[in-house]
Amino acid sequence: MTAALTLHEDRLLPPDPETRSIARRLYRNIRDLPIISPHGHTDARWFADDAPFPDPARLLIVPDHYVFRMLYSQGVPLERIGITRRDGGPVETDPRTIWRVFAEHWHLFRGTPTRLWMNHVLHELFDVRVRLTPETADDIYDAIADRLTTDGFRPRALYERFGLEVLCTTESPLDTLVHHARLRDSDWQGRVITAFRPDPVVDPDFSGFADNVAKLGDLTGEDSGNWNGYLRALRVRRQFFIAHGATSTDHGHPSARTEDLDHASCERLFTKALAGEHTAEEAEAFRGQMLTEMARMSLDDGLVMQIHPGSNRNHNAELFARFGRDVGADIPGPTGYVDALKPLLDRFGNEQNLSIILFTLDETAYSRELAPLAGVYPVLKLGPAWWFFDSPEGILRYRRLTTETAGFYNTVGFNDDTRAFLSIPARHDMARRLDCAYLADLVADHRLDEDEAHEVAGDLAYNLAKRAYKLEA
Amino acid sequence: MTAALTLHEDRLLPPDPETRSIARRLYRNIRDLPIISPHGHTDARWFADDAPFPDPARLLIVPDHYVFRMLYSQGVPLERIGITRRDGGPVETDPRTIWRVFAEHWHLFRGTPTRLWMNHVLHELFDVRVRLTPETADDIYDAIADRLTTDGFRPRALYERFGLEVLCTTESPLDTLVHHARLRDSDWQGRVITAFRPDPVVDPDFSGFADNVAKLGDLTGEDSGNWNGYLRALRVRRQFFIAHGATSTDHGHPSARTEDLDHASCERLFTKALAGEHTAEEAEAFRGQMLTEMARMSLDDGLVMQIHPGSNRNHNAELFARFGRDVGADIPGPTGYVDALKPLLDRFGNEQNLSIILFTLDETAYSRELAPLAGVYPVLKLGPAWWFFDSPEGILRYRRLTTETAGFYNTVGFNDDTRAFLSIPARHDMARRLDCAYLADLVADHRLDEDEAHEVAGDLAYNLAKRAYKLEA
Amino acid sequence: MTAALTLHEDRLLPPDPETRSIARRLYRNIRDLPIISPHGHTDARWFADDAPFPDPARLLIVPDHYVFRMLYSQGVPLERIGITRRDGGPVETDPRTIWRVFAEHWHLFRGTPTRLWMNHVLHELFDVRVRLTPETADDIYDAIADRLTTDGFRPRALYERFGLEVLCTTESPLDTLVHHARLRDSDWQGRVITAFRPDPVVDPDFSGFADNVAKLGDLTGEDSGNWNGYLRALRVRRQFFIAHGATSTDHGHPSARTEDLDHASCERLFTKALAGEHTAEEAEAFRGQMLTEMARMSLDDGLVMQIHPGSNRNHNAELFARFGRDVGADIPGPTGYVDALKPLLDRFGNEQNLSIILFTLDETAYSRELAPLAGVYPVLKLGPAWWFFDSPEGILRYRRLTTETAGFYNTVGFNDDTRAFLSIPARHDMARRLDCAYLADLVADHRLDEDEAHEVAGDLAYNLAKRAYKLEA
Repeated sequence: MTAALTLHEDRLLPPDPETRSIARRLYRNIRDLPIISPHGHTDARWFADDAPFPDPARLLIVPDHYVFRMLYSQGVPLERIGITRRDGGPVETDPRTIWRVFAEHWHLFRGTPTRLWMNHVLHELFDVRVRLTPETADDIYDAIADRLTTDGFRPRALYERFGLEVLCTTESPLDTLVHHARLRDSDWQGRVITAFRPDPVVDPDFSGFADNVAKLGDLTGEDSGNWNGYLRALRVRRQFFIAHGATSTDHGHPSARTEDLDHASCERLFTKALAGEHTAEEAEAFRGQMLTEMARMSLDDGLVMQIHPGSNRNHNAELFARFGRDVGADIPGPTGYVDALKPLLDRFGNEQNLSIILFTLDETAYSRELAPLAGVYPVLKLGPAWWFFDSPEGILRYRRLTTETAGFYNTVGFNDDTRAFLSIPARHDMARRLDCAYLADLVADHRLDEDEAHEVAGDLAYNLAKRAYKLEA
Repeated sequence: MTAALTLHEDRLLPPDPETRSIARRLYRNIRDLPIISPHGHTDARWFADDAPFPDPARLLIVPDHYVFRMLYSQGVPLERIGITRRDGGPVETDPRTIWRVFAEHWHLFRGTPTRLWMNHVLHELFDVRVRLTPETADDIYDAIADRLTTDGFRPRALYERFGLEVLCTTESPLDTLVHHARLRDSDWQGRVITAFRPDPVVDPDFSGFADNVAKLGDLTGEDSGNWNGYLRALRVRRQFFIAHGATSTDHGHPSARTEDLDHASCERLFTKALAGEHTAEEAEAFRGQMLTEMARMSLDDGLVMQIHPGSNRNHNAELFARFGRDVGADIPGPTGYVDALKPLLDRFGNEQNLSIILFTLDETAYSRELAPLAGVYPVLKLGPAWWFFDSPEGILRYRRLTTETAGFYNTVGFNDDTRAFLSIPARHDMARRLDCAYLADLVADHRLDEDEAHEVAGDLAYNLAKRAYKLEA
Repeated sequence: MTAALTLHEDRLLPPDPETRSIARRLYRNIRDLPIISPHGHTDARWFADDAPFPDPARLLIVPDHYVFRMLYSQGVPLERIGITRRDGGPVETDPRTIWRVFAEHWHLFRGTPTRLWMNHVLHELFDVRVRLTPETADDIYDAIADRLTTDGFRPRALYERFGLEVLCTTESPLDTLVHHARLRDSDWQGRVITAFRPDPVVDPDFSGFADNVAKLGDLTGEDSGNWNGYLRALRVRRQFFIAHGATSTDHGHPSARTEDLDHASCERLFTKALAGEHTAEEAEAFRGQMLTEMARMSLDDGLVMQIHPGSNRNHNAELFARFGRDVGADIPGPTGYVDALKPLLDRFGNEQNLSIILFTLDETAYSRELAPLAGVYPVLKLGPAWWFFDSPEGILRYRRLTTETAGFYNTVGFNDDTRAFLSIPARHDMARRLDCAYLADLVADHRLDEDEAHEVAGDLAYNLAKRAYKLEA
């Protein structure tokens, strides 16, 4: 017998009947609010071209690192699911075969958010009503593939169907933003805007750093080979991003370290970094200084800063060698904020016109450091539970560990941080349900009145993100 | 329509009906036990003078760091709520205006313990029955202000109304304890006693350390300029505190580091510290040695030690510069206990007549270090969830993370650690409810029998604090 | 009135009625599965001799470190409960007296897993129906003592009664495995096999390291005084263990550090270690190298590796001096895995024929490091909640913190890790109940379908351990 695939209307809500009723009422009120997606990794080209998405495997499996990590951990070679090899070696190219491999291993995802997101996508977008198994894999594949050829499944149609109000992508300063320009100049009403992610030109350890900085000079007409010209070039490029809709920057550093060095030290570090003669410590210091420089620029141009620290990139040397960046198994590590952020905070922590959103992959920082910091510094806000913690338990831990010290209003609502465009409604829906679950707990044991919980639910689902990322305009 | 302010009789109890019934029964039994407040920061002068408290703002807003941190984090200058500036610059002085600012921002406290404590105070002490909003702010202000002028709201009357059995304050060794002496010599039956907090004379980084040590010598007639005389002076001063009721000491160090150095090293560190020529490392070492010295003295005079480590004091440089100590935004950091305490424990850890109560701002230490340490060393006990963690989720995490290894009887009950005198019943009530909620969980899934839970509830609410702090006498 | 001792059939299941029903159904299905005990510290001699166990105290109290730690923390000298002193000094020898001391302090264990295990043992094995108190202590003692003399309470009978399918012990490479040989050669059908725990011969800080290595040479006929011969000797000895049933190795290092050094460095470290001239850092490096060597050998001989890092052994100097190893109060500390394991993982992390099971005493590593690592590296699996965390809250935290990233299938089921043979069914029953409780949560809020939860429950209770430890044969 084929098992059914259902999306229960009460999924992720608390099991206690009274609490569940409260959660239902809260959720029902905010369920259909537009989606603000202020941070993510979709591709503006999709919306500029509005071409159909490719096959089910290349859409749903190949680019999803949650999926391929789990399969690989259980012995599935990444070649079998079509991940491109750096050396051009052979990998599976038949999408149906890849989909079957995925279906065979679908049980591995029990208890993971991937399962919830995928089931939501299958059920809501593709009207699948049977559980994915090796037996049902082909039928489900066909159902997806068929729909992907229809107009209703083209990127712009989905954007509208998803109720998106704004969708932010993330680009390098070296990006031409040509697709964002096309979108800006088109008559489509969707709002797909960029965010300024300068890692390639501010991280001395980034592949091709010196070339990137040179290219930054070329793009801006500044002499990026000296410290002052380099900073000017960054300012110019930020303006270019702002002209393409950007309201924020994003910084993916190994740690939260910041520095506030004197001019001579900055010049010296910069020169060494360009020459590739920096030590690991000097690279850390330079990155740290650049966070402070970015804050200084944000004070002037108003871009909201996002700091995503604490990932050890490409931990798995063999995967990195074979498949490259973003397949190399990033692994979190202990991440300190209190000492790390002090130089930046000493300089700019009390500004009224600067906003810095902090993320973490080290949950121990929530109650010990992040909530106390965001609960006192005017410039700091807490980003939502991120990456591994964008999950039912992860989101509840986030609220339970931060709210009592930082409150709700030093947080910025949800962001999906995804390149899996089709899963965006699933992810926002999950976050909305869990925020309502948390609020229902507060109402159920009389820590909050229900009318207030309704207001907070709307803020967490919609208003806070809009405000924090300056997306009202 | 004006929203009502209610205190639900089941607040903070578990929502599951069966578990809630158990929790209710447990709570009902211990709700009205006298309050032991063995650690806090109220002012003995209040009780010695028994003068009326000042206006609502200076009583409830200005001195409460939970309140002003949150307001500041959301952009409210501390001048607007009347925090005194070091430079004497202008700050708001009208209490009603300050109260209105607070009321405008009251929604920021949703989900925080401040909200629960404040609502308890408003409802139970001032008979407020409407929610605090900008619209109700003036009426509530008047209700509070009116009552504060009445005899029933003078400090001694409130002490009695609160059911306090003992209230401990915290003083520097340089304090004359004149108000404690007045209380001791008065015919009032309340028990307001001091605790010995030697930070100003044992921390080389404390403002005015050398002067403080000199003053310690003056107060005791000992030559505090040499190591032996300094130790004698501390012993003498401890006796003075004991004569004013003290049963405990309290130590607010940046870390839990202890040392057990030889005499020559102690002398050398002490000399450098007095001369202000110590390094940061030497200051740490000296503070660490002083914890061991305090333990040695406690073995002789019986004072219970409390160690409150792990706060980075005055993290916000601008706030500290403008408003000074205790407004400078203390932020926790990672705090290790296992290596840090070893020198002291190697020396005194197995004594039968020494008691050291450990606190933490780093919740990761609960299950990893603190419960295992307290679960084997006879001298160690665990203090309750502290500061940011004196909150519904914080208290439950504390029990869930420590009980299975340390049990209940290596903990010391609740203490409120507050300078907000009016909130003491609210804080103890919250802790009692949450301990009953935790116990009800154990009963509901048959980890504990209900008759035993009743006994434990009484121990957590009353007996353990009395015993651990030697307050039976 | 004497309080009853009952074992409620729903103990440890969630209190919410609907969730409890689901949990009941899940549990009922897997409750009676055979017990796989793939890691523990029972004594093969018990089963080889099949002699009656000694008195209640020496069976249930004296060897249980959970018990004596708690008693000692509350001021009970270990001499009073019969722990042998190194100096041969007098200790209590009357088992009934020891039992009475235990009974007097039984309330200390409220809220701890010891209470649950002991009550299970008393109720299920000894038909005790009254709560242990000073008043009932003698009767209960007699009930236990009586039964211990009967045939049904001899080791082999209990093994069968417990439904054990396999029971792994842990031995030093220097052990002759004579009792395992006797078992292998006996006609008893029970499967009691060894595991290879090389700490005495791979840890330069282990008492008698050089002698141990020499003895290893003697046992194997290899020249263990040089690096190559030493490695050969280890390989030979592993084969000897395999011949006695071993399917796994076990490594109890202070940290998870690994190394992948060149041959010359290995030789140099080994020489220094043998001469006792190593620094603490060199000892760490050597132990780290040996983990990588063990992995290399496992690739060849198929033994599954278990790494149990992060315990500060013998923290209590006085206890260690008086009572020796394993009574010296081991205390966990912060334990990093990401950098520590990288050398080993760079070498062997992507092998298909190697399996390394990671444990932790630092719960912060679950979501931050262990689940992400096990969720991508094919060689890594997560061991169950260990030691202090083999407890109701600990097991639930383990699942909540690891499942969303690593899933269920990168974990290895339960192991009891105990020397308390009689408690094995209690421990497995506790783990089974809690896994069902966790699964019921997933079903109740529709994160998992119930038919899948049944399958997972069986995997967690039985199949995963059998597969991970290669016990199918």
